[in-house]
Amino acid sequence: MSELRKDPITGRWVIITTEGQKRPSDFCIEPTEQKPTQFCPLCGGNEDKTPSEVLAYRQNGGAPNSPGWDVRVVPNRVPALQVEGSVERHGDGVFDRMSGIGADEVIIETPDHMQTLATLPESAIAKVLWAFHDRVVDLKQDRRFQSILVFKNHGAAAGAALDHSHSQLIALPIVPRHVREEVDGAHQHYQVKDRCIFCDIIDQEVRGEERVVGESADVVALAPYAPRFPFETWLLPRHHRAFFEDAPRQDIESLSRSIKDVLQRMNRALLMPPYNLVIHSSPFYESTGEFYHWHVEIIPILTKVAGFERGSGFHINPVAPEEAAKVFRTYS
Amino acid sequence: MSELRKDPITGRWVIITTEGQKRPSDFCIEPTEQKPTQFCPLCGGNEDKTPSEVLAYRQNGGAPNSPGWDVRVVPNRVPALQVEGSVERHGDGVFDRMSGIGADEVIIETPDHMQTLATLPESAIAKVLWAFHDRVVDLKQDRRFQSILVFKNHGAAAGAALDHSHSQLIALPIVPRHVREEVDGAHQHYQVKDRCIFCDIIDQEVRGEERVVGESADVVALAPYAPRFPFETWLLPRHHRAFFEDAPRQDIESLSRSIKDVLQRMNRALLMPPYNLVIHSSPFYESTGEFYHWHVEIIPILTKVAGFERGSGFHINPVAPEEAAKVFRTYS
Repeated sequence: MSELRKDPITGRWVIITTEGQKRPSDFCIEPTEQKPTQFCPLCGGNEDKTPSEVLAYRQNGGAPNSPGWDVRVVPNRVPALQVEGSVERHGDGVFDRMSGIGADEVIIETPDHMQTLATLPESAIAKVLWAFHDRVVDLKQDRRFQSILVFKNHGAAAGAALDHSHSQLIALPIVPRHVREEVDGAHQHYQVKDRCIFCDIIDQEVRGEERVVGESADVVALAPYAPRFPFETWLLPRHHRAFFEDAPRQDIESLSRSIKDVLQRMNRALLMPPYNLVIHSSPFYESTGEFYHWHVEIIPILTKVAGFERGSGFHINPVAPEEAAKVFRTYS
Repeated sequence: MSELRKDPITGRWVIITTEGQKRPSDFCIEPTEQKPTQFCPLCGGNEDKTPSEVLAYRQNGGAPNSPGWDVRVVPNRVPALQVEGSVERHGDGVFDRMSGIGADEVIIETPDHMQTLATLPESAIAKVLWAFHDRVVDLKQDRRFQSILVFKNHGAAAGAALDHSHSQLIALPIVPRHVREEVDGAHQHYQVKDRCIFCDIIDQEVRGEERVVGESADVVALAPYAPRFPFETWLLPRHHRAFFEDAPRQDIESLSRSIKDVLQRMNRALLMPPYNLVIHSSPFYESTGEFYHWHVEIIPILTKVAGFERGSGFHINPVAPEEAAKVFRTYS
């Protein structure tokens, strides 16, 4: 029997179909793999092949744009938005536009072409998260920006242009619609209940257990109740905070462990699928402190079931989250 | 220079980047092709290989589920929703669900495996649209359903499980979020302006011309001002109507011509890309008559630029709609 389920944050309904149980490995048709390459601009030693770095962590010091870094952040060579200029707004009849001001940066997660976020040690994943943190804190000073998207596309099918393990951030003079929806939905819940909807979800899910993928003292990994995509997984910090950049050291370190754990389970269960990882965090200039709750969403790209939702705008998910969580728990 | 643009209906911002002009043919990496096949359940002569038909047009009569049809509608063999049963609503703490009641039907657009919606004559495309119409009118009698999605996935990358040219419809006991957003956005505009936002867009665009792909007395094909995807195209009937199923014969016939015209331009310009075609129509039990405007959206799946928006929920479009419209106008 199929079921219609409603996401309690955004109000979005999805269809969960559970006809014809498939094995998890039936889904992935584009396994990712790190292959040695002749030349890669993101590899250690090729620092002069990227724009000049805006941040790098070097354990043993060293000059900017020289080897010896663990994580390195550079402006996107082909930026979607320009960092120079003022935000100018224009109208044209019914239409509104704005100059394409923003920051578009690439976080190179390792100098080693053969590593991925799943194979790096936890301490290296934590450094990637600290690089996100440091860049967000820095860019937030720039009052032109209202929000920052931090995301990772792993594998070509997930939108990655380069194989070398990297993430991206885009600072925007607007609040994107999907962030708006979450914030507004969480606000509505708070107005009625005086509680954070994400905290409510964590409480209920941890008691019920059937959608829990993994738990630590600080982070809960869940298959969400109304997932848009098969094996979609959310990593929620237990401690309520609206802003990723306000997370304490303990939460960042726990999140590193949780990310590694979930990616490893995903790679074993679904055979190295391409995936997107997105940090959901509050827009800057809104009083969201009481009701919004930052978190991470990981979505494997399982190409056999892609396509439909893109055109229709409506999601049919052939894997119940209870089943997805069970599969992930099995592949420890 | 990039630009941020806002869709006037939904309020969604997108980034339009126009750096590094590409040729249109650079985009499509999965051209579709109709290949002869040993066995296809949707082909004429294999009527006993599908569930029993719910509608068929046979010019020369004939028994149900026998050959001789032009268009044939059958229930989906693996339905996402079940048509039998009552809509039962349940709560579970913060979560809401509903029994998976709905209709899931496949519209077989031609008995000939080698034809597509682009190669069929206009009169055959009109029959497909009439089949949509007749099924919507019939399913609308069923008071369990609040809306119907009519859509077409062409090519595996667009979500099609079978090569044979077909569309799909799903009748739902809910209103999907993307429909809700359009209806709510159009309602807001009406409250302020006392006009339909779609009619306003048509007026403005037909005067400006730069985003017009094609025009007839009844239908305007446009590259929308803030497209999510490259070469996204909207087909808008000039005559204001909220419901697709209320369109008069003249509009259906004009739309057939417009669909064929746009698909042919798309196939020439973008080398037979996979695509989604979706009919956007009002939910049934709402007084949308004054402000909602039914239309068709066609989105080619250009795999080199897919991926990003899926994870981030935010759209970066590397082709300005003015450029897309110009390209389509060239490939007449």
